[in-house]
Amino acid sequence: MRGEIIAIGSELVSGQSLDTNSYWLSQQLTAHGITVAFHTTLGDVLRDHLVVFRNAVARADVVVMTGGLGPTQDDLTRAALAECAGVSLVEDAESVAAIEAMFARRNRVMSERNRVQALFPAGATPLPNPVGTAPGIWMQVERATIACLPGVPHEMKLMFRDQVVPRLRQRGLVDLVTVHQKINLFGKGESEVEAQAMDLTARGRVPEVGITAHDSTISFRITATACTEAEARLLIEPTAKLIYERFGSLVVGEGTDDVPEAVAAQLAAANATLATAESCTGGVVAQMITAIPGVSRSYLGGVVSYANQAKIDLLAVPRALIESHGAVSPEVAAAMADAVRTRLGADLGLATTGVAGPSGGTPEKPVGLVYLGLSTSKGTQTRRLDIGSDQPRDIIQRRSSKAALNWVRLTLLEKR
Amino acid sequence: MRGEIIAIGSELVSGQSLDTNSYWLSQQLTAHGITVAFHTTLGDVLRDHLVVFRNAVARADVVVMTGGLGPTQDDLTRAALAECAGVSLVEDAESVAAIEAMFARRNRVMSERNRVQALFPAGATPLPNPVGTAPGIWMQVERATIACLPGVPHEMKLMFRDQVVPRLRQRGLVDLVTVHQKINLFGKGESEVEAQAMDLTARGRVPEVGITAHDSTISFRITATACTEAEARLLIEPTAKLIYERFGSLVVGEGTDDVPEAVAAQLAAANATLATAESCTGGVVAQMITAIPGVSRSYLGGVVSYANQAKIDLLAVPRALIESHGAVSPEVAAAMADAVRTRLGADLGLATTGVAGPSGGTPEKPVGLVYLGLSTSKGTQTRRLDIGSDQPRDIIQRRSSKAALNWVRLTLLEKR
Repeated sequence: MRGEIIAIGSELVSGQSLDTNSYWLSQQLTAHGITVAFHTTLGDVLRDHLVVFRNAVARADVVVMTGGLGPTQDDLTRAALAECAGVSLVEDAESVAAIEAMFARRNRVMSERNRVQALFPAGATPLPNPVGTAPGIWMQVERATIACLPGVPHEMKLMFRDQVVPRLRQRGLVDLVTVHQKINLFGKGESEVEAQAMDLTARGRVPEVGITAHDSTISFRITATACTEAEARLLIEPTAKLIYERFGSLVVGEGTDDVPEAVAAQLAAANATLATAESCTGGVVAQMITAIPGVSRSYLGGVVSYANQAKIDLLAVPRALIESHGAVSPEVAAAMADAVRTRLGADLGLATTGVAGPSGGTPEKPVGLVYLGLSTSKGTQTRRLDIGSDQPRDIIQRRSSKAALNWVRLTLLEKR
Repeated sequence: MRGEIIAIGSELVSGQSLDTNSYWLSQQLTAHGITVAFHTTLGDVLRDHLVVFRNAVARADVVVMTGGLGPTQDDLTRAALAECAGVSLVEDAESVAAIEAMFARRNRVMSERNRVQALFPAGATPLPNPVGTAPGIWMQVERATIACLPGVPHEMKLMFRDQVVPRLRQRGLVDLVTVHQKINLFGKGESEVEAQAMDLTARGRVPEVGITAHDSTISFRITATACTEAEARLLIEPTAKLIYERFGSLVVGEGTDDVPEAVAAQLAAANATLATAESCTGGVVAQMITAIPGVSRSYLGGVVSYANQAKIDLLAVPRALIESHGAVSPEVAAAMADAVRTRLGADLGLATTGVAGPSGGTPEKPVGLVYLGLSTSKGTQTRRLDIGSDQPRDIIQRRSSKAALNWVRLTLLEKR
């Protein structure tokens, strides 16, 4: 099956807004076994609609359009589609009633202008819009089965899933299901992970495995297409197992679960508590962990001891220690971790101190140098990170924060 | 002038990657006075190239293409363009030399396959690629002036700016310059700001003014197009002045400057220091302020007193106060602000305590309720925010953190 996507709107074609609808629809159609051959984006110009529609109905089996279904004079999809099909526009009584009801629910009166949203090319089927005023259109023109959807992304997505996919399936245009499984790793670079996974990521392998990196987390995305979801999951299973076996403790979670989610889950499971003392990361560790709902049972709190005086005032780090070793030192990292654990009566105390840049680096202590400290009842350890002096401040803060939390994760993993 | 953008690549048309090149090119062409009528995205299929290219050269004055210029068999732009123009492909000696030199700089040997990147349709002009191996193509076919650029975004952007724009200008296809000025406001909702700016945002006004909202900051974007940049700036000036006068202290900055940047600049200018005590925001206030380089002179640090015990241990907030008023109360917010200011010897102490959700809300203290405390040598004040119980956790944390910092901003503004 050959598919085509048409996005309509002057704001899209002029670059005032990014066309993410086409991107999403491509993924959906591809996942259902339809090969998308073209995306076309055009403005609100009737002549341009006709050229694009006529091309599409002659060359595609499935055409999905978004936009141009609103009540204004700029909204030309209905008129252009009727002209392309050589039919007239007729009013659909049910759609008028549905639009009136939508306005009533919002305590507003439907304007006469909104009636145009109930006009459809003769022979078309209206697709009800449960969350907006613009109904969609379902129609066959020449070779193409056409679905016109509103441009508002959440309306479009809902209608695509609930109405377009079932109709395509019924017509036999869609007969496949694609399933993805994403496994997230932290602790090694992308190229290193990739080198250990050449067999998995080989082109043409079934199921397909891709590697992506985001915010220092490396993800494997396993993709399988089959006639049913269950079959696709069966195809994925052995590959997922292989990744778990091969990468062991590097695996932090699946889907959207990253290092902070893993740490939160482990703390809860171990009934352990964490406290943090941050210098160069300036609150990023705390923010990452408190972003997770319900973490308040495990995360007690912490200190952002940004200035040296704050390390002394809040954590009683001895001034002499800072003066002899410098604030960026394993000794100070250890003292911070110990102090915050003791102060808050936590099971684990985690500390960061480093040079986040862009200024403040020296040859001995360059930008990107970060020391971590981790204190437990069994003792205190430190680690050195070199994020790289060419990295921007936010990357240095985020990467070292994630590495710090990952150390907590590995420590809790060993204990089990 | 009528423009058209063509993006080539199977990874784009299937939704494996988002086509941001078309978006960027649309903005650029529009800014230079060219009306973009179509974007087309297509995969690596020669037949599809020909259909799209033939349409484009018949209907557009300027066509910019990206992608399909690599050395693999999937890269069909050169061949399709030659076929569309009815000419043969010829090797360009200078391009061969440039590609060889690029490989030499990277200490690699050019493969025979890379020679195809030096093939051009007869009559075309090579566009040198200073940062990659794929040269671009500049060519006139029928009505259209065509620029083919690599798909790698940074190569494409550099070549568009340095080579395509000057050539378009030389041909008289580009004769305008568009300038934007973005003014950022914080402290009122988008609809409220919009209601006060109906005259500015009216359609057809010169210069044009748009409103956007991001992360609770409302931005006016003034856009003017003229023959020179200086002329465009002159057109913008009176509108910018009007916005400053009308919105006064709501204005936090221009461009990418938001509330944290404004606070950091004001603290530095006033030679004042800030300390923070966060409960529900869990480090987000600290993270926002420490994201700004060089803020260590003004921001001393703070406490993330997430658990009640942390408020007692780190800030000596009396247990009785928490028990009688609850942790989420103006009394506790005030005590936290006072304590952190005193502990760290700061000029300003800022505190947050609230219910970030999704659970933990009660009828009296619903999700989204946040109290702020601000302590200075002149006394301590509190404020109540109701972010809304339907808002997600991260929005509640970010919005209340920004509102807290905005309070610091307004306080420093008054002092001046």
